[in-house]
Amino acid sequence: MAVLKGNAVVAQSGGPTAVINASACGVIQTAMANPEVFTGVFGGLNGILGVLNEELYDIGKEAPAEMDRLRRTPSAALGSCRHKLKDIKRDRGDYDRILEVFKAHGVRYFFYIGGNDSMDTADKLGRLAGEDNYDLIVMGVPKTIDNDLAFTDHCPGFGSVAKFNATAVMEAGLDTEALYTHDTTTVHEVMGRNAGWIAAATGLARRGPEDAPHIILLPEVPFEVEKFTAQVDDCLKKFNRCFIVCGEGSKTPDGKYLGEAGGSFATDAFGHAQLGGAGEAVRGIIENKIGVKARTNCAGTAQRNAMHFASKTDVDEAYMVGKTAVEAAMKGVTGQMVTLVRTGNDPYRCTTGLVELQKVANGEKVVPPEFIDPSGFGVTEAFLDYATPLILGEAPLDIGRDGLPLYVRLTKCMLPKKTETRK
Amino acid sequence: MAVLKGNAVVAQSGGPTAVINASACGVIQTAMANPEVFTGVFGGLNGILGVLNEELYDIGKEAPAEMDRLRRTPSAALGSCRHKLKDIKRDRGDYDRILEVFKAHGVRYFFYIGGNDSMDTADKLGRLAGEDNYDLIVMGVPKTIDNDLAFTDHCPGFGSVAKFNATAVMEAGLDTEALYTHDTTTVHEVMGRNAGWIAAATGLARRGPEDAPHIILLPEVPFEVEKFTAQVDDCLKKFNRCFIVCGEGSKTPDGKYLGEAGGSFATDAFGHAQLGGAGEAVRGIIENKIGVKARTNCAGTAQRNAMHFASKTDVDEAYMVGKTAVEAAMKGVTGQMVTLVRTGNDPYRCTTGLVELQKVANGEKVVPPEFIDPSGFGVTEAFLDYATPLILGEAPLDIGRDGLPLYVRLTKCMLPKKTETRK
Repeated sequence: MAVLKGNAVVAQSGGPTAVINASACGVIQTAMANPEVFTGVFGGLNGILGVLNEELYDIGKEAPAEMDRLRRTPSAALGSCRHKLKDIKRDRGDYDRILEVFKAHGVRYFFYIGGNDSMDTADKLGRLAGEDNYDLIVMGVPKTIDNDLAFTDHCPGFGSVAKFNATAVMEAGLDTEALYTHDTTTVHEVMGRNAGWIAAATGLARRGPEDAPHIILLPEVPFEVEKFTAQVDDCLKKFNRCFIVCGEGSKTPDGKYLGEAGGSFATDAFGHAQLGGAGEAVRGIIENKIGVKARTNCAGTAQRNAMHFASKTDVDEAYMVGKTAVEAAMKGVTGQMVTLVRTGNDPYRCTTGLVELQKVANGEKVVPPEFIDPSGFGVTEAFLDYATPLILGEAPLDIGRDGLPLYVRLTKCMLPKKTETRK
Repeated sequence: MAVLKGNAVVAQSGGPTAVINASACGVIQTAMANPEVFTGVFGGLNGILGVLNEELYDIGKEAPAEMDRLRRTPSAALGSCRHKLKDIKRDRGDYDRILEVFKAHGVRYFFYIGGNDSMDTADKLGRLAGEDNYDLIVMGVPKTIDNDLAFTDHCPGFGSVAKFNATAVMEAGLDTEALYTHDTTTVHEVMGRNAGWIAAATGLARRGPEDAPHIILLPEVPFEVEKFTAQVDDCLKKFNRCFIVCGEGSKTPDGKYLGEAGGSFATDAFGHAQLGGAGEAVRGIIENKIGVKARTNCAGTAQRNAMHFASKTDVDEAYMVGKTAVEAAMKGVTGQMVTLVRTGNDPYRCTTGLVELQKVANGEKVVPPEFIDPSGFGVTEAFLDYATPLILGEAPLDIGRDGLPLYVRLTKCMLPKKTETRK
């Protein structure tokens, strides 16, 4: 079978990470190195919205030097979104529209970098194209700081958010240690709505029992107030201080998020109730039940974009999965997501594999019991063995004359529209 | 006059910074290099509390290699506190007690690393010793991320918190840019209760009008809701997104902290009101008055300990002020704080000076009008010229085989007590 020749669209989806651009760079540079297959490489402005709205731009017009720097730029430089396509069984309009735009622009390859939902979208697009007898190769590239995709050993983006948060916990932990006579406890909230991988990863900061974090709250372990306060009390007796990491998705035994149930319903200036975060809820419990002062840290979106201290392993693997997706596509592979396959742990070795998009779309991987300490408040050696290799190495960084990182903003040369504007 | 021979006590006070240990290291290594003057170098456990409680430890017993690493360790490794001494006019008991402990341990030099209050304490101690005819040399070493000490061009600790926050804002700003169709605004809260230096410093991240931060809220500029929402609206029209940096000490025109007045009074699980932060208050205003989604980031204590991306200029200067304090003390100078004196800006040059402790204790330096943009929502070129040199260079970092920084914890070999335990 002859190699399919045509244009490629690459798009990013969902929450940004430190390394999703490294994956995009892997896709783009590999595709551009094969112009006999990929006649053009286009970006979708703001992910799938850019395809729906026919807002595509020509990545070939970007300066090659900037493309190199894309690899070292955090967030989603192609533009992302959280747009949920309509249910294809009820309304296939969105999917038909995407195919219409693809056909109008001679797009034969679609590389979608994202999580579960994105893999589902890519899968359905591929199937629909098949029904239409339109040759379209769709490949998924995994991305999520949450590390909750099934069928892959780990997810690009996780290693870097893990390295940054473990470091921040180590550093803020020293703060609590130095000031324990005044600020006795600290609650450090990290991302991870459904899975506790990021919270668990801060356990890497703990080289000895004295070190932060002393307590880790995972969404996988129901939060019981009495058990928690007993654990804090115990820690205060031992160390005069307590540093707690709280996954934002931590829940009560009846399944309510802590921010919703245990904690602070804020009322704003206009009398509307606002939902506080899990960290604030835990702080309230400590101050009121135990009676010691607690502080909260919550780096928010800064944590998932912390390229300034990203994991080199993560950046390299992110590039590799992008590159591999293109190489597989050139061999005619379609409807698959590239996975990371760990082939050794000492020394760590990792290669790539493939899995059907459909399978990924329906899986979710939470932190398994063997990675959770029997107390429910920490992680096991097995988890540390799993996570340590993922944070190794420091990704190279370009620093400007102003002392700050040099990150790239694409010029995004828009393609002229070829279809009727969609209402 | 013969050089005073005796033991030295070094102590840290107040909130930790990335570089207060570099200053301690400057004091310790310089004192230890002069054993003919400094017969012993002792640390005060938890700052002045360690002196009051006669909890002193022998720094000479620490491994020299660990001492080198102290220079690259964030937070206050000697131990800090926020203990406020009693007013000397009403009750000089605390001061007498400190002198009692100093006398018992042959302490002739006291190096106090801290902010306004610490300089005041050191000053009073020096005067009291003089009244008692006890030869004691007291020297102040400046430290505060808040950069609000008078008589010094800038304060060790500021450059590093500025570099980290500017970088975090740059990175989180790219997140808001990528996801503006979903998370349209971000409020990034930074430290600085009375002065807006840290908030102002995030302006360094803004290389062009599109870049974050688009709006900076300083405690120096009263927060007016209508003016603010108009500014956000304007930014949304221009860029489809808005990234706001909010100093934690931002206040309403009638002088109330935003967290207190404008925003969210959280009620915890037990019905107690909790004071929300300034960032949450601003988020509430955006969501309710403008009707777009807002996120908040608040790195908390992690920001002031971010040695993993500290300013080399800051670390070097922090060491220099510690070293200079000892050198001055050896010349018989007392009752002075070491200052930083900028002697050139292009290229940047900085040397040290001295100022009477008493003067420093009563001064506070807020961001002056010429550094604040006429709009009240940003900084001027003059400010950028002032701040840029302070964040230049990346401080060297030791990374362990586990991919995380290697920081030091002192062994703190306690000295036997020589006085009655204080009740």
